[in-house]
Amino acid sequence: MPSSRFEVSLLEKKERIDQSLERLLPKPDVAPPILHESMRYSVFAGGKRLRPILALAAYEICGGREEVILPVACGLELIHTYSLIHDDLPCMDDDDLRRGQPTNHRVYGEAMAVLAGDALLTLAFECFLGRGMNAPIPYERLGWIAGRIASAAGSPGLVGGQVMDVGGFSQDRQLETLESTCRLKTGRLIEVSLESGAIVAGADDSIVSAFSRYGRALGLAFQITDDILNVTGDTKTMGKAVHSDASHHKVTFPELLGLDQARSHAHRQVEEAKQALSPMGEPAWFLTDLADHLLERQS
Amino acid sequence: MPSSRFEVSLLEKKERIDQSLERLLPKPDVAPPILHESMRYSVFAGGKRLRPILALAAYEICGGREEVILPVACGLELIHTYSLIHDDLPCMDDDDLRRGQPTNHRVYGEAMAVLAGDALLTLAFECFLGRGMNAPIPYERLGWIAGRIASAAGSPGLVGGQVMDVGGFSQDRQLETLESTCRLKTGRLIEVSLESGAIVAGADDSIVSAFSRYGRALGLAFQITDDILNVTGDTKTMGKAVHSDASHHKVTFPELLGLDQARSHAHRQVEEAKQALSPMGEPAWFLTDLADHLLERQS
Repeated sequence: MPSSRFEVSLLEKKERIDQSLERLLPKPDVAPPILHESMRYSVFAGGKRLRPILALAAYEICGGREEVILPVACGLELIHTYSLIHDDLPCMDDDDLRRGQPTNHRVYGEAMAVLAGDALLTLAFECFLGRGMNAPIPYERLGWIAGRIASAAGSPGLVGGQVMDVGGFSQDRQLETLESTCRLKTGRLIEVSLESGAIVAGADDSIVSAFSRYGRALGLAFQITDDILNVTGDTKTMGKAVHSDASHHKVTFPELLGLDQARSHAHRQVEEAKQALSPMGEPAWFLTDLADHLLERQS
Repeated sequence: MPSSRFEVSLLEKKERIDQSLERLLPKPDVAPPILHESMRYSVFAGGKRLRPILALAAYEICGGREEVILPVACGLELIHTYSLIHDDLPCMDDDDLRRGQPTNHRVYGEAMAVLAGDALLTLAFECFLGRGMNAPIPYERLGWIAGRIASAAGSPGLVGGQVMDVGGFSQDRQLETLESTCRLKTGRLIEVSLESGAIVAGADDSIVSAFSRYGRALGLAFQITDDILNVTGDTKTMGKAVHSDASHHKVTFPELLGLDQARSHAHRQVEEAKQALSPMGEPAWFLTDLADHLLERQS
């Protein structure tokens, strides 16, 4: 049972997003069924929905009250899911387990996993543009955010970060390199999720920048916590292989800083994130609580 | 030397597109260099630029005179290139040769080929939206076409067609199934290329529909000719393995109809395509000539 106001709001947001994802994804009986089944398999494999929750929260904090933010928010989750499917492929991280279930390619084969990822990435842009079309959001805002999201997802962001990761470019063992790889790989999409919510709600530039600052710090805190859980967690709670970073020879925050220092670093980022929310005042309580919650998570 | 007015115009369009692609793609020295090198390798491997040429031609026929169509047109080529890189992967068609050169994964490895494809698909949407931003094209039109292109590229189009292809769903040996797979896999992107050019130029719906009809017939004629060349061509002229359809157990038009009937079928599509251009009159001469030219191509 959710007990705090934060947990109630988190659950309510997650449910709205899951319902929208259910509507936005092609039904499994639409041809070709195997593709749509494979896409749904990974989207409904128990994701935390962090990115769409951030978009929805930023939108509401900026006064947005329409359902039309949901396709935009869901598109961000589709991009995140596609990136996980491709990252898990045998030619990349070669992972068998994700969120406690066999990875997409273990169930549907490599070809279908590549194609399901491709289709999810493409569907995301339909969600940003095509499917939000009858919405009372000016096209100028939708086009603007879709372009920003494309940049955060492409070679200057997500894909570039994955290249750094698989190519071992972050092997120089500098905190700066690790932080910039991490910002490319997870940070920019988190930042742009918050920015999108604010822009769709019509927020002005200074507010959008405050959300960027929050997202940047939160993304880093999130990755540090992930690295810590990879060392201290167990497979059952995490739903994926633990200690996998070490076996993949990935440089991590705890490895570089030690566990205690890594925890303090995450803590500082959470403080920085909360600080960034000050221009928004009380209405930003949900994002303040979310940042605190992040430090305590076990999975 | 180009001798006809058609060849002069084709070459001029191709050069403008190649120059724009050069500007739009990240330079190979931008980090991570290996990713950008891999993206450029496939984009500049000698493509015919059919899709951007169609977008540019439709735009000009509808009275468009600005350079701003070029990022949109180039985005279409990036989507085409990404789809070829992923189709060639070992888990898909496992092809070693494309346009006379080793396929992307043969040069850069599978992981980089997957990521280069992902980055090109994402960059395409930046081209449709972000990079066309200072352009005097209303955002309403850009958002509208980007949504349409996403649909044509995703599970209801390109990716769906590839699933039909690799999944052997077109094995029922019906002309109807083969035509619909082919429309998904190549037809819809060709149609939407023409539509995009017309929409960006501000054409009205009846003209956009005429371009769709032209594109639909042209796409089919193009695929039939491709299948015929796969049987009758040689590797040197074609720049890729010939007879590969048979070795991949793909159902093709010549196999289903015989060579002569396949040729007549392509011919009928070209006539249908030219017929569709009649509302545009003389200014559509380039697309009329292009359809005729298609029947005579050797590669």
